[in-house]
Amino acid sequence: MSATPPKQGKPQSAISPTRAENFPEWYQEVIKAADMAENSPVRGCMVIKPWAFAMWEQIQRVLDGEFKRTGHQNAYFPLLIPLSFLQQEAEHVEGFAKECAVVTHHRLQAGPDGKLRPTGELPEPMIIRPTSETIIGASFAKWVQSWRDLPLLINQWCNVMRWEMRTRLFLRTAEFLWQEGHTAHETEAEAREETMRMLGVYESFARDTLAIPVISGEKTAGERFPGAVNTYCIEALMQDGKALQAGTSHFLGQNFSKAADIKFLDRNTQLTHAWTTSWGVSTRLIGALIMAHSDDDGLVLPPRVAPAHAAVLPVLNGKDDARVLAGCRELVDRMRALNYHGRALTLELDARDLRGGDKFWQWVKKGVPVRIEIGPRDLDAGHVVLYRRDKPHKEKAIVPLAELAARLPAILDEMQAGLLARATERRDASSRWVSSEGEIDKLFRGEGAPGFGYCFWAGSPEDEKRLRESLQVTVRCLPLTAPSGIAGQPAGASGPCAVSGKQTGTVAVIGKAY
Amino acid sequence: MSATPPKQGKPQSAISPTRAENFPEWYQEVIKAADMAENSPVRGCMVIKPWAFAMWEQIQRVLDGEFKRTGHQNAYFPLLIPLSFLQQEAEHVEGFAKECAVVTHHRLQAGPDGKLRPTGELPEPMIIRPTSETIIGASFAKWVQSWRDLPLLINQWCNVMRWEMRTRLFLRTAEFLWQEGHTAHETEAEAREETMRMLGVYESFARDTLAIPVISGEKTAGERFPGAVNTYCIEALMQDGKALQAGTSHFLGQNFSKAADIKFLDRNTQLTHAWTTSWGVSTRLIGALIMAHSDDDGLVLPPRVAPAHAAVLPVLNGKDDARVLAGCRELVDRMRALNYHGRALTLELDARDLRGGDKFWQWVKKGVPVRIEIGPRDLDAGHVVLYRRDKPHKEKAIVPLAELAARLPAILDEMQAGLLARATERRDASSRWVSSEGEIDKLFRGEGAPGFGYCFWAGSPEDEKRLRESLQVTVRCLPLTAPSGIAGQPAGASGPCAVSGKQTGTVAVIGKAY
Repeated sequence: MSATPPKQGKPQSAISPTRAENFPEWYQEVIKAADMAENSPVRGCMVIKPWAFAMWEQIQRVLDGEFKRTGHQNAYFPLLIPLSFLQQEAEHVEGFAKECAVVTHHRLQAGPDGKLRPTGELPEPMIIRPTSETIIGASFAKWVQSWRDLPLLINQWCNVMRWEMRTRLFLRTAEFLWQEGHTAHETEAEAREETMRMLGVYESFARDTLAIPVISGEKTAGERFPGAVNTYCIEALMQDGKALQAGTSHFLGQNFSKAADIKFLDRNTQLTHAWTTSWGVSTRLIGALIMAHSDDDGLVLPPRVAPAHAAVLPVLNGKDDARVLAGCRELVDRMRALNYHGRALTLELDARDLRGGDKFWQWVKKGVPVRIEIGPRDLDAGHVVLYRRDKPHKEKAIVPLAELAARLPAILDEMQAGLLARATERRDASSRWVSSEGEIDKLFRGEGAPGFGYCFWAGSPEDEKRLRESLQVTVRCLPLTAPSGIAGQPAGASGPCAVSGKQTGTVAVIGKAY
Repeated sequence: MSATPPKQGKPQSAISPTRAENFPEWYQEVIKAADMAENSPVRGCMVIKPWAFAMWEQIQRVLDGEFKRTGHQNAYFPLLIPLSFLQQEAEHVEGFAKECAVVTHHRLQAGPDGKLRPTGELPEPMIIRPTSETIIGASFAKWVQSWRDLPLLINQWCNVMRWEMRTRLFLRTAEFLWQEGHTAHETEAEAREETMRMLGVYESFARDTLAIPVISGEKTAGERFPGAVNTYCIEALMQDGKALQAGTSHFLGQNFSKAADIKFLDRNTQLTHAWTTSWGVSTRLIGALIMAHSDDDGLVLPPRVAPAHAAVLPVLNGKDDARVLAGCRELVDRMRALNYHGRALTLELDARDLRGGDKFWQWVKKGVPVRIEIGPRDLDAGHVVLYRRDKPHKEKAIVPLAELAARLPAILDEMQAGLLARATERRDASSRWVSSEGEIDKLFRGEGAPGFGYCFWAGSPEDEKRLRESLQVTVRCLPLTAPSGIAGQPAGASGPCAVSGKQTGTVAVIGKAY
């Protein structure tokens, strides 16, 4: 690991191992080097440190704005769910009973040995919410009386818990933060429209804010949310060629409204069950961000989700420090008055008493989009030295101070677009058509990044099971938009299913999943 | 309950019972009428409905800005706390063991009767955090190595759980939402300074945003946070004359840093324990808001914390509706472009197909600061009809549309100031000096609103216990600022303690508490 910016030649990587050497370990090291999160003493639970939490705050800010723009309101429901609620929906309980934290007592008492033991047993155990359909359904049943009360469009930002046995920071943790939208509608059509609208919100958010291109599609029956009629998802491709489910939107039909008895008097004064949806994204998106953009020198952040747009690094010499720091502060304050995509243009002044090279590399590894150096001579000359995270580290630009307010937003926009373009190219370059199990095997069995496999699909649940078990790949989704331009794609709009041979017009996207 | 705006005479109250008739029931009815929250099927846990949650969002927005302005960063720590962590600090465990939700299993399995039962017993039970000193301390111990790592200034917005037996919406619930600040410092002086700084943030926030005047003071030993060296609080007076603790800030000394082993190499390269603080406010503030300002017609909200600044109520006649609604929408959009104390000026258009009187009263009961009626003739005349929540309901003002952008912020500022002035007058009018237990008894035993009692104080824990048990009053705090102008206040800066007779310069504020 290099501690000073290399003066010449190709810089050695700041993260070891590199992506090519060991992607999973590289991932852990990027998180550590950027000071984003760490495992906690509680099995499977992580501590989200300020730099990563600030990304979550940006994600929340942008998505929350979209939810409100589309008519949703936030509310808050209980953390605990009585077992009787969980049992209302048969598939749902099946899906979550195996991995949930169970609260059985409400008091601790010290035994004769001084050790605390649970006491005050609850009449009915409760679980910590793994998702809130059942407990929110109980409220909806009270709130909805007439078609005039619909649609009911509610969102909740909260923590949930699923007792995962194999955990990885951000990607799979026992406790995680998320939002869960829950809506109830008068008609099936309206509920289906809502399901697709929110999937669309996730797709645009991933593309426009996270700079991650995603495929929107439907899950096959075996991958549906427990209790849903249809589950839709956005699927992203990581740099190691693995797929990551980045968000889901479920059309729940009347399954949960029947379970929770969400009924209303319709326009014909008939008592009818409401049609419901639910949809969510989680702190997993931060894992997606890391694996979509970062490089062998650490985190790379799209400007719209970066906690700070730029780091200001004063060049201190012990003599002109007061003057230099004052100049830096003036710059930070002046920029803060500017709005960049809905928030203040945020420059973080790093005035710590550290060697310049250490500071420089810390900010590289933290993925701040732009680094701005200011020394006494720069101040005299009325300019700053600007480095971009998406360019080679020693590539610098001299920008007059007077032009920074105009130039910085344009540079950030260019980076944002550039990261999306790069991620899209990567994904497209590793997507190909596969026409048989043999071709699927060849694509995914090889070394290196496998990518997305596209194929005609009329497979059965047994076919999917075989793919999963023998080839370790899964159908990620049935894309909503017909793919085009995939390497090896046949000309026709239909063809034989890659696994069953049946003629079909349905396309599936296959991948190795996180 | 009246459904139409009364045309003449004193309106009958929209909330029954009135404050005078039955304050606790009035409180529940105000919450219900404003559609703020309800009890959930989970014992002691509430559902926070959108109108109240939007108040919490305003509280979060303003406080979070203050926390960041004072150098704090947000982070997130695990929900669950292993018993061994809780036991590190003896007083702490004593304070929380009696009321905590205990997780003992991580799986459910259906028995032969089909009923789910907990299985997968955990090697060590865990509790749902009642507060996070111990689990955050474990992280701080890893993060702090040198004096250069200090101060560490962290805040967390989250849910916590304390298994309360007697619960009341917002005031005391088993689960509640809050923020908990946790900081570590190099010196005792710095930690003490931080403790007081955050108490000051709370005091200004209560005054300037919630329009609630509070007394800042120190808790007596018996009322300290379990494990704290000093606990400071802000105490507010509700309209029934009871005191509500609205926020606390704790100087923890080295108690928790010793328990969690938060050590650092100081400037003299000595290994030293850090000095820590913690401070928090919760959704209880919403209960304070309700009881400080509301009247017999329902909720009254200070504009700075109101989810919407005004409700726009179109007067629909079936003929000019399209034109009227378009005019209303244009107004809402035009106002949204204006900034009012850090957020968009928010007008909520209520286009529901409801009788005008029902709508009018719904918005009265929801406490929206201003109601704006617009009918076809108003549009023609280029004006709106404006009603203020702090004036009699039939008192209206005709405001030219062209002047609304200038007039509305001024009206809101006037209401904000007016609510604070009214709450301050109420509090001051029901504060008086008490010189003996007899006078304390007389003040608090009587009917009606007792208020704050001030007295010289040199009482012992036993004296406090006697007050609590025989007179049902507690020492709310020892105020930080010497009181002046209290009715019946003696001239000198010292005098005999009201309960022990000992001469002292210390003053206590006594009250009946929520």
